[in-house]
Amino acid sequence: MKIVRFEFEGKITYGLLAADNQITVIDGDIFCGPYQESNKKVALDQVSLLAPCQPTKAVCIGLNYHDHAREMNLKLPEEPLIFIKPSSALNKPDGEIEFPSISKNLHYEGELAIVIKKTAHKIPVEQAGEYVLGYTCANDVTARDIQMHDGQWTRGKSFDTFLPLGPWIETQLNPHDIGIKLLLNGEVKQASNTANLIFKVPEMVAFISQVMTLYPGDVILTGTPAGVGAMQVGDTVTVEIEGIGRLTNTVARG
Amino acid sequence: MKIVRFEFEGKITYGLLAADNQITVIDGDIFCGPYQESNKKVALDQVSLLAPCQPTKAVCIGLNYHDHAREMNLKLPEEPLIFIKPSSALNKPDGEIEFPSISKNLHYEGELAIVIKKTAHKIPVEQAGEYVLGYTCANDVTARDIQMHDGQWTRGKSFDTFLPLGPWIETQLNPHDIGIKLLLNGEVKQASNTANLIFKVPEMVAFISQVMTLYPGDVILTGTPAGVGAMQVGDTVTVEIEGIGRLTNTVARG
Repeated sequence: MKIVRFEFEGKITYGLLAADNQITVIDGDIFCGPYQESNKKVALDQVSLLAPCQPTKAVCIGLNYHDHAREMNLKLPEEPLIFIKPSSALNKPDGEIEFPSISKNLHYEGELAIVIKKTAHKIPVEQAGEYVLGYTCANDVTARDIQMHDGQWTRGKSFDTFLPLGPWIETQLNPHDIGIKLLLNGEVKQASNTANLIFKVPEMVAFISQVMTLYPGDVILTGTPAGVGAMQVGDTVTVEIEGIGRLTNTVARG
Repeated sequence: MKIVRFEFEGKITYGLLAADNQITVIDGDIFCGPYQESNKKVALDQVSLLAPCQPTKAVCIGLNYHDHAREMNLKLPEEPLIFIKPSSALNKPDGEIEFPSISKNLHYEGELAIVIKKTAHKIPVEQAGEYVLGYTCANDVTARDIQMHDGQWTRGKSFDTFLPLGPWIETQLNPHDIGIKLLLNGEVKQASNTANLIFKVPEMVAFISQVMTLYPGDVILTGTPAGVGAMQVGDTVTVEIEGIGRLTNTVARG
């Protein structure tokens, strides 16, 4: 099931996207329920998609791909290293990523994002699956020079527009055996498979929920594979995840 | 003017606290307006205060007191170093701070908090004052061992209950010449004056707003003076700021 979020008849709403690219508008709460399909339909190409959820926070995992660890010659982490992107950084599918005037080195990081279904507080690994609504594509946009200058990663990763998310939430997916790619102006820059994830989805949800409560619509960015690199103003960047779809954004002067 | 937030007649509401400890219930939006005083009054000792605002994020400043820099023998920073505490960490005045089972070293950090009045995006220093509703007390509770273990400060500072805030917002205050103290079980552990702030309030608001949009109710924690230290289960910790009041919390097993 593909869940989209978009503006329809003047209000923001959720819908289900079918294989024929028709969206059925949803009545109710897609996260906590109950919800039902209405009799309203609209074609995908008639709407402008929004980020498919409204996270109160995005919790991001540092090094989490075996291939990226090898590339960087880094020891495998014993537990996830986390940081936060604030809700103010949220960006929509096809939204512009703003290149901050105070940065000279803007990087893409293609990532699989977990979308939280219901409030998760100190969840055991075995139950973590019940707290996941589905998966979407994310770009953990990073002003690399500011990240490195500060040592703390927050500022370099928290600029407005630095969290493109979408295009929709896929609820039926094995998150541990899917291809993930990032393309810059159509050229493949990152290509891996989530089988390379060091910490798996249930471990990430459980680990973070021991620290901080996760709310419906919160997202976990699961880390980026090898091949991160720079973007320039005018570039088009696409995160493509097998079984989900493509998240495409352009880079504009901030 | 002292703005309080509390539960009244089954719903969460704002009020104005007068010198006689009577609260006048507010109708309307205290941040964006309009609002007005209703004819409902209640005594302060009849209500249980909540955190005086609902931040979407708390943006915190690292080293920002001259005395703390001297104590640590650190060079003065050239610009603020920021990190984020998520909304899930919010705690109320007199709420319990939970000592995480995975930490052995829980620290207090008494801080002046700025409360944002209206959406602030790329604000110049000269206009920053218009975006400040007022000030309150905060405790930047930190699992010091986890902070140091991770290098990134997010996890050690983001546990649920690690952001006690209150007891109210004071809107008339010169934030650059007030005493700030932290007391542990009644003993003074931190004592400074905001005259020692390295970056002043307008600089902090302007700096952060260049990176990320600040929303009504968001808070900026302005850094802690010299004298940080450990708390144990059962301890009572008070942040006392001249012209505002006292924020007191107890430490419980998490």
